[in-house]
Amino acid sequence: MFDNLRLQRQVEFIVEIDKLKQVLRQTVTTNKSRQENSAEHSWHIALMAFMLSEYADSVKIDVFRVVKMLLVHDVVEIDSGDTYCYDNDACKDQHEREKRAAARIFNLAPEDQAKIMMTLWEEFEACKTPESRFANAIDRFQPLLNNYYSKGKPWIKHSIEKRQVLDRVRIIEEEAPKLWDYVKELIDDAVQQGFLKK
Amino acid sequence: MFDNLRLQRQVEFIVEIDKLKQVLRQTVTTNKSRQENSAEHSWHIALMAFMLSEYADSVKIDVFRVVKMLLVHDVVEIDSGDTYCYDNDACKDQHEREKRAAARIFNLAPEDQAKIMMTLWEEFEACKTPESRFANAIDRFQPLLNNYYSKGKPWIKHSIEKRQVLDRVRIIEEEAPKLWDYVKELIDDAVQQGFLKK
Repeated sequence: MFDNLRLQRQVEFIVEIDKLKQVLRQTVTTNKSRQENSAEHSWHIALMAFMLSEYADSVKIDVFRVVKMLLVHDVVEIDSGDTYCYDNDACKDQHEREKRAAARIFNLAPEDQAKIMMTLWEEFEACKTPESRFANAIDRFQPLLNNYYSKGKPWIKHSIEKRQVLDRVRIIEEEAPKLWDYVKELIDDAVQQGFLKK
Repeated sequence: MFDNLRLQRQVEFIVEIDKLKQVLRQTVTTNKSRQENSAEHSWHIALMAFMLSEYADSVKIDVFRVVKMLLVHDVVEIDSGDTYCYDNDACKDQHEREKRAAARIFNLAPEDQAKIMMTLWEEFEACKTPESRFANAIDRFQPLLNNYYSKGKPWIKHSIEKRQVLDRVRIIEEEAPKLWDYVKELIDDAVQQGFLKK
């Protein structure tokens, strides 16, 4: 049929990533009606990144790079599934599983674009550059909000303790210190209300 | 509780827009299991915009602006609902309904950010700048792909004709002409396979 190979590969990638809409996370939507999926989560954090970029501790970050990273980084879950951050066993081989997924999925796209997305994903995972560290901070902040505003539904289900959440979101203290006071208050209030164990 | 009013308003906005995950569109996910929601749709088109920006007909567009526009523009549907593009009655007062929604929802955020989002939304709606025209083209291309790859499920349900779809996606011919040959072939094939009426 259509003979533009480059566009064909782009479309193949675009159609493939539709599957991210079926990958369910432990986090629920704030109305508690259902689990959130990774595609809508990616939208939420991408929008949050440009709204909250003023809190990035580094003098100057490339906000568009952060947004691209957040739009792309969960695509690997199409193959590997979402790994619950408090499931220590599943976390063990998470990176290996996601690496294989990244290789398969990104390489559906034309070579130059596959390389760009792979670089974004690796940067996010390595979590060393200011952009990737801020992106990771935002990626932790959103589930914290959703867990709190859904009255701790997933935390209660899995008997999560305050110290586990604090460990999980610690990167916010480093990368967006002006958000940290708020985060601490939210977590303390979650304990108070019985959403989280002491 | 927390006394940073600016951050409080930002969080209020971020929590409010979670509701976009409950707004259902006519388009279905490619596996045909369910209707797509506007949050995951927004993620899909934002990612598509930077993957397909090479097809923008204008010499130089600000791709980050396009992405921001696409991340923000559907938020109004939290109040106004998704209006089916082939429902002529509902389309009549669509802009009025969405304008009221924009005023309420964007103004939850701090004033400067509310203004930025309102400007992005108005630019998208007016569809006159190269960025907003390309954003609109992408916003039409994604449902075309999802409708085609879900074997025309929503088209068949609503007895949609080829000329209606051609009218709807015509902006792609103008803003991304190199995508147009592909779009035409896809629509012709959709007719051939019985997804669309002649």
